[in-house]
Amino acid sequence: MTAIAPLKKITLIGVGLIGGSFVLDLKHKGLVGQVAGVDLNAGNLERALERKVIDEAFGTVCAEALAGADLVVIATPVATLPDVCRSLCPLLDSHTVITDVGSTKQSAIDAFRRYLPEHLPRCVAAHPIAGSDRSGALAAQFGLFQNKKLVVCPHGKEDSDGLLMLESLWQAVGARICRMGADEHDAVFAAVSHLPHLLAYAYVHQIATHADGSTYLDFAASGFRDFTRIASSHPAIWADICMANKESLLTLLYGQQKQLAALAAMLENADVSALYRYFETAKHTRDDWAASQ
Amino acid sequence: MTAIAPLKKITLIGVGLIGGSFVLDLKHKGLVGQVAGVDLNAGNLERALERKVIDEAFGTVCAEALAGADLVVIATPVATLPDVCRSLCPLLDSHTVITDVGSTKQSAIDAFRRYLPEHLPRCVAAHPIAGSDRSGALAAQFGLFQNKKLVVCPHGKEDSDGLLMLESLWQAVGARICRMGADEHDAVFAAVSHLPHLLAYAYVHQIATHADGSTYLDFAASGFRDFTRIASSHPAIWADICMANKESLLTLLYGQQKQLAALAAMLENADVSALYRYFETAKHTRDDWAASQ
Repeated sequence: MTAIAPLKKITLIGVGLIGGSFVLDLKHKGLVGQVAGVDLNAGNLERALERKVIDEAFGTVCAEALAGADLVVIATPVATLPDVCRSLCPLLDSHTVITDVGSTKQSAIDAFRRYLPEHLPRCVAAHPIAGSDRSGALAAQFGLFQNKKLVVCPHGKEDSDGLLMLESLWQAVGARICRMGADEHDAVFAAVSHLPHLLAYAYVHQIATHADGSTYLDFAASGFRDFTRIASSHPAIWADICMANKESLLTLLYGQQKQLAALAAMLENADVSALYRYFETAKHTRDDWAASQ
Repeated sequence: MTAIAPLKKITLIGVGLIGGSFVLDLKHKGLVGQVAGVDLNAGNLERALERKVIDEAFGTVCAEALAGADLVVIATPVATLPDVCRSLCPLLDSHTVITDVGSTKQSAIDAFRRYLPEHLPRCVAAHPIAGSDRSGALAAQFGLFQNKKLVVCPHGKEDSDGLLMLESLWQAVGARICRMGADEHDAVFAAVSHLPHLLAYAYVHQIATHADGSTYLDFAASGFRDFTRIASSHPAIWADICMANKESLLTLLYGQQKQLAALAAMLENADVSALYRYFETAKHTRDDWAASQ
């Protein structure tokens, strides 16, 4: 890894767990001089200033927030990317690199292409794999990306200097870089992240709306706790992600419906050996995955 | 809580996590003199002897294993209960109390009624809520039941001295006693335990059998880890539980299929506000539950 020239200024749009943790680490390592934070939530900005996650706070994307920025990190819910790009368009300096941290990458590249067409060579779509059910500026923490993957999805028109600068920054905060196409990215994360969130919400929703749900919950224990942890994730962030990746997700959701139908048939038929083999296949896959981590 | 007279001997049938941890704590507290272990698995018995979970080992239910036992704890997979009861029947002393630790209680009481009819007043159906994805004698540990619930499902024909003795033993190892009907128990645990296990297996099975599943798993992270932990549970134990509670479970599984169909419709219709409200309901329920723990 070559030495990275420190950036003079980063503009962080959306001061939450992911963006906040990224700039905290960069500051800590002396890789950025100044961070301007833009957020709709005034309380969030205040906490981010107090915790020195950011140095200046702005309620909207404006010329002052962008002035002199070497890098703009968009870390708002994925559905807001078109609006954010539109508002950035007239304010960007030609050298400024734009990136995002969203969980869906085809939608991010679409927004870059459509709303920042002139600036496309400076736009890099990225996704750090370090989610949490926690959110907001208070959740920002040092070392969040240590040994985590950072998926970069090149759209093919990037200037290599911007792409490599961004990858170096993520490597500097401990991330391992993986490059893949945006379509592949979206299929992968629909399977290992978006679908489990949807299923965890679906299960808890069933209990929440069941006539005896609150009695049931009195007896929920450790299995329930872990299985449902991701149902405590931010509803707006996840509604946006699911919608932005709805094609991949629907395909998997129909697949999951088939799995449940197969399980219902095994139970109806009292086919305990089929049920055993089904569980065993799942257990082996899960055990092998856990051993590889 | 009144002082408990120590038992001379317990016969533990199925020397695994639950039964093993129970007798470990009872020994530690001086509440039992001797433990005879019965298990089909010779290696398991050997480890249990080494770890002093048990004092004597038997490969089958036999007169010697039962001789002088004050209490028999059946801690084998729930489907084996009829066979175990049948083999116990000719060997039981009239004072011996029989109990189980299974996750389904209507099936346990059915087995007691059918295969130990003469001995029914000494049979107590119980379920300690302290599962784990770990299993076997090596998983047995001290303090497993501290502050955990022990659900007792009276069938109405118990002698009170046996019932109270058993509850006192569980209280002595730290459990909090809850009594409820076996039908209510089975509905509750279908909802908060058996269904989540089934759904976790279903999700992992879908990924395991997907053409791109192994690529997908390279990118699985913390959300995946927690959501799928219970899919590492013992397949035979869980196939038995699901089958023994299939009526409650099927009703809930059909309910879950409706939840998934509703979610698919929201995605198809791009109804992001319905999706948001759905996720929000689940999040609130899950957050409230977590705060109450």
